[in-house]
Amino acid sequence: MLYLVGFGLHSYKDITLRGLEAVKGSATVYLESYTSIHGESLDAFEKLIGKKVHLADRAMMEQTDKIVDESCRENVSLLVVGTPLFATTHSDIMIRAKEKGVDVEVIHNASIINVLGCCGLYSYSFGRVVSIPYFTERWKPTSFYDNIVRNHQSNLHTLCLLDIRTDEDRFMSVNEAVDQILEAAAITGSPLINEDTRIFAVCRFGSPSEEIVYGKIGDLKLRSFGDPLHSLIVPAELDRVEAELVGSLFK
Amino acid sequence: MLYLVGFGLHSYKDITLRGLEAVKGSATVYLESYTSIHGESLDAFEKLIGKKVHLADRAMMEQTDKIVDESCRENVSLLVVGTPLFATTHSDIMIRAKEKGVDVEVIHNASIINVLGCCGLYSYSFGRVVSIPYFTERWKPTSFYDNIVRNHQSNLHTLCLLDIRTDEDRFMSVNEAVDQILEAAAITGSPLINEDTRIFAVCRFGSPSEEIVYGKIGDLKLRSFGDPLHSLIVPAELDRVEAELVGSLFK
Repeated sequence: MLYLVGFGLHSYKDITLRGLEAVKGSATVYLESYTSIHGESLDAFEKLIGKKVHLADRAMMEQTDKIVDESCRENVSLLVVGTPLFATTHSDIMIRAKEKGVDVEVIHNASIINVLGCCGLYSYSFGRVVSIPYFTERWKPTSFYDNIVRNHQSNLHTLCLLDIRTDEDRFMSVNEAVDQILEAAAITGSPLINEDTRIFAVCRFGSPSEEIVYGKIGDLKLRSFGDPLHSLIVPAELDRVEAELVGSLFK
Repeated sequence: MLYLVGFGLHSYKDITLRGLEAVKGSATVYLESYTSIHGESLDAFEKLIGKKVHLADRAMMEQTDKIVDESCRENVSLLVVGTPLFATTHSDIMIRAKEKGVDVEVIHNASIINVLGCCGLYSYSFGRVVSIPYFTERWKPTSFYDNIVRNHQSNLHTLCLLDIRTDEDRFMSVNEAVDQILEAAAITGSPLINEDTRIFAVCRFGSPSEEIVYGKIGDLKLRSFGDPLHSLIVPAELDRVEAELVGSLFK
């Protein structure tokens, strides 16, 4: 049996009781460490479950069937920061397991998608989620910007997830993201977003040091937002109730 | 202190360890019973936490400040099926608490929004979420249909949440939703969705009896989908990888 267990947003205490049961009943426990990072050291969690947590990096996840093959013989838990199946990597391991006749149980949990609504914006008024990848000198894809503009034209807010390179220990900051957004505005010649645009900077969502800041890009550029992970929300026009909620939450 | 505690999708075992700590440390525990229903009897949970869970209906949530006032004096937990803050009702109680000087802690959990990705579709390829309200003889709003069409025109999938009337013990079924979608197609004269359109019926998401069916509307109309809660996903064109994943998951 393979358990895909959502590990939640920050602390080992974000695991569900059902997740904990699965982990305790597994011979081997992995933590998927390629698409995200976990907020805490694993010591307290390893003590709680009475066994070691092995890290599953990109090679382990994508280039071998080790985890699937082990779960043919015994119970294996794969912890996923946030919730399982939000990234294709996890759908893929589920399908490979099923193809080898292994039962798979998914244990859901909170993920960054749960931030919808936390800023006083309607969850129903979000358009597609976009991902902002690190630009290089030669590679500056601007499709994320086009999608923000498209959402905005339909009066929909945009949750922007920022690039993570766990193998290089690099996590895009609000400041880097904002610079790239302004660069994309210049490249595409579509000036929807500029220094006066008000956005939400979402930092360390779900952790005790969570910080959500609402302000003009020009002002946000001047401050630091601390440790990863960071995300952004680019709001469309706020309706009356949203404006009231945002006003109350961000005085 | 007021704890807004996500109760997860189905079982009391879907609560997180952090949520359980908050509940155990609270003088009074409420379950918000107006925007959703919980899948199980509360007996086992009440036994686990050693106290009674009081139901908070619409009147309690919206017409009084009882919960907020109690949390001025002592720790109170408000359990929310799924995750807190996805519905405006919960943002509203958070703001009223903050206005009265009460500290609020939000403990996130999985919700129906976590279904994005579970069908083999990219989470990034979903447009805005729509809600399908019960039609009456005289009131047949079709804006949900327009939004499905708009998503589809941008090649985005649509998660459709179905109406819940907890006070009348009425929960819209896949069959009722599909009938209303076809009626809306006729009213608006926009024939995007018809009996040949393939959709996903998502039933009792996150529970042991979870069932996800992929098929033509004409075929889905002929079968029953069992107990609530039901949701739908209307996919746009699948890309190559999505088609492969969907093909593997729904043989």
